[in-house]
Amino acid sequence: MFQTSIGPSGVSPGYMRPETAQGIFVNFKDLYYYNGNKLPFAAAQIGQAFRNEISPRQGLLRVREFTLAEIEHFVDPEDKSHPKFPDVANLEFLMFPREDQVAGRSARRINIGEAVAQGVVNNETLGYFIGRVYLFLTHLGIDKDRLRFRQHLANEMAHYAADCWDAEIECSYGWIECVGIADRSAYDLRAHTDKSGVPLVAHEKFPEPREVEKLIIVPAKKELGLAFKGNQKMVVEALEAMGEKEAMEMKETLESKGEAAFNVCTLDKVVTINKNMVSISKEIKKEHQRVFTPSVIEPSFGIGRIIYCLYEHSFNTRPSRDGDEQMNFFSFPPLVAPIKCTVFPLVQNQQYEEIARQIAKSLTVYGISYKIDITGTSIGKRYARTDELGVPFAITVDSASSVTIRERDSKQQIRVNVDEVASVIKEVTDGQSTWGDVLWKYPTHSS
Amino acid sequence: MFQTSIGPSGVSPGYMRPETAQGIFVNFKDLYYYNGNKLPFAAAQIGQAFRNEISPRQGLLRVREFTLAEIEHFVDPEDKSHPKFPDVANLEFLMFPREDQVAGRSARRINIGEAVAQGVVNNETLGYFIGRVYLFLTHLGIDKDRLRFRQHLANEMAHYAADCWDAEIECSYGWIECVGIADRSAYDLRAHTDKSGVPLVAHEKFPEPREVEKLIIVPAKKELGLAFKGNQKMVVEALEAMGEKEAMEMKETLESKGEAAFNVCTLDKVVTINKNMVSISKEIKKEHQRVFTPSVIEPSFGIGRIIYCLYEHSFNTRPSRDGDEQMNFFSFPPLVAPIKCTVFPLVQNQQYEEIARQIAKSLTVYGISYKIDITGTSIGKRYARTDELGVPFAITVDSASSVTIRERDSKQQIRVNVDEVASVIKEVTDGQSTWGDVLWKYPTHSS
Repeated sequence: MFQTSIGPSGVSPGYMRPETAQGIFVNFKDLYYYNGNKLPFAAAQIGQAFRNEISPRQGLLRVREFTLAEIEHFVDPEDKSHPKFPDVANLEFLMFPREDQVAGRSARRINIGEAVAQGVVNNETLGYFIGRVYLFLTHLGIDKDRLRFRQHLANEMAHYAADCWDAEIECSYGWIECVGIADRSAYDLRAHTDKSGVPLVAHEKFPEPREVEKLIIVPAKKELGLAFKGNQKMVVEALEAMGEKEAMEMKETLESKGEAAFNVCTLDKVVTINKNMVSISKEIKKEHQRVFTPSVIEPSFGIGRIIYCLYEHSFNTRPSRDGDEQMNFFSFPPLVAPIKCTVFPLVQNQQYEEIARQIAKSLTVYGISYKIDITGTSIGKRYARTDELGVPFAITVDSASSVTIRERDSKQQIRVNVDEVASVIKEVTDGQSTWGDVLWKYPTHSS
Repeated sequence: MFQTSIGPSGVSPGYMRPETAQGIFVNFKDLYYYNGNKLPFAAAQIGQAFRNEISPRQGLLRVREFTLAEIEHFVDPEDKSHPKFPDVANLEFLMFPREDQVAGRSARRINIGEAVAQGVVNNETLGYFIGRVYLFLTHLGIDKDRLRFRQHLANEMAHYAADCWDAEIECSYGWIECVGIADRSAYDLRAHTDKSGVPLVAHEKFPEPREVEKLIIVPAKKELGLAFKGNQKMVVEALEAMGEKEAMEMKETLESKGEAAFNVCTLDKVVTINKNMVSISKEIKKEHQRVFTPSVIEPSFGIGRIIYCLYEHSFNTRPSRDGDEQMNFFSFPPLVAPIKCTVFPLVQNQQYEEIARQIAKSLTVYGISYKIDITGTSIGKRYARTDELGVPFAITVDSASSVTIRERDSKQQIRVNVDEVASVIKEVTDGQSTWGDVLWKYPTHSS
């Protein structure tokens, strides 16, 4: 981490956050309250994270300052089902389970519904997010054949994690981890609870109070003090920390033999406990609610890495019209293209320019980003320039009443009325229609 | 600034950025190229900035880590007109020019078009951004009577700035500077040019080459070396740095008297220059372009401060229905309300719940954020809770075919068909229509 010092004195150290997640965990109590004290719920954050990498390299892939987007989805550890799982359950994509990696096999297409049913993926909520990450990345324009979900090997995974899958994207640097989707169990909330003393827990109220059998261990501090002197506290804590099985065995031994051998880890020795030193019993108690630490499922997105891979997967070349040159173009889907369309008067002419400006205004009203080019550069050159920027649609003003729309990848053109053109562009860029849909609706134009 | 050290050695110091602007200035050459080597153009950035404040205080108003949004609009210093200025020129709002402050007068309503015409605001581009900032803040929900534009006094302004106005918003802490709109002239680009040696300049190509008279000063280094020995370099530099007037006077003196007295600042003394030591002349040169450092107009938004003031300006109380209580509500405009609407089945009933879920789904399709509450809590309580969150619209399912929409501030209700309700909400939240518009189109409902 990067260290700095806060305030004028210079004695108060601070660190730049290496991930965004912890800010969500420390706010758990408020977030839980905002959700009406109900699980499941999720909080998401996007922002800069800072890691003092020893050797930053590979462009945007390993950097010291990067944009991280994290979702923390809190669930009841006893119910990790997800109501929307059926929406993704039929997706099939490249997965690389732990067993296949160990056996030296390759990633293979697996149905996510089956992966969850067979226990390859630990639970429905984790499976739901894996499915949603697949949809997210492929909608952005990541090639589905160069995207795989690789399960962490047992030795890669943090000790507390229940399961973890990385969305890896293949690029010229190999398979790059771009999104991590982990079931971190209750680890983070427990760690903050331990350090801060503030319980970060959820409550499930029972409709009817339930009778619960509770183990009660009461060490007799006076007797233990006489017997163990300075070690009394360690022995008391060790007795209180006994699990049900161990405690019931000790109870039996004490009742039959009057004393029992007891291993105190913190003292690293076995001591003798006699029956005056501890009372062990079971009581029936009425409970009105269950108190528990939620588990968290965390999809964590490295935005720079995703964008870098998107550049590689979207970069294409094709021959120029006369075949002399290789032309570069980015095939960004309309959804993510930074500039959605261009407006070109075919030739320099005041009337066409006027219409171009009028179209530009209506694009602004629809909130569509565009580029207008009224220079006299040849239309072929103007298309080539904006193909290189990945602009999906080009509007060319070649008459006073109607204009053409050209699609970048197919170079197909349709003819649309001037007053309709902005709404057609809106339709095909916000995902209501595809280019295929509008191609049927409007006359095609061949240049 | 916050200092840290970069890399494993700890010897390479780094600083957390105190503003976002400098990243734009160092990228000027690329940005200028992306804009086809044409002025004007603007680049904008939003992100975290860090300042090691001695005493952070006043909630979100003075903090060590904050969100800053900056626009750097680069213009030709010889032409600071703005093509869209007429769009804002008729706006009238509270302005507080330097003269009024010095004279002890109050802020007054001034027409921004007149302020620019009279030279109160330095130029059109600066005036355009002042107008746009006014529109931005009032659209967010800032009260126009508690918003003023205060001009920096001469002693407040950085020495390089041509003019600077702060958008100040009045809240319980007084008038708070929330946006700064400054004409920083060419200062930043020049400073980076000086330090880096990379010229951050723009070019204006002349349609025809122009003849320009150029001053040529050629110091005779050999003679100067013999005369001034170790001080030769300082004398050479001082001669080369002469302005046109000074140089032409020296030329005249040298021609008439053979020698001239010359003050060398860096030596802090007057030396005698004779006519063998320097040749001064004027030549006519052909120039094909003008090379200059652009000026920059910078609107800089403190996002946390704006949000804090928006909270204060949007916070209201009104009596409850029975008059017993004061109820709090936030009157956020639909545009900025974090949750746009709620969906409530009037009573707990499977059919209404089903319809509520169906409406919720169609809201998701339209990209509208909503909250659904199917608890049996009384409808009045549910309205009160969401008024407190500033949710502008509430959909209540009270029949199988039509539902009511309630507006938060007026508490007025209209009745709309189930299959139309999502598109009506869309219309009134994205600004296509106002509540007043839809109130005329649909039957009102009184509860």
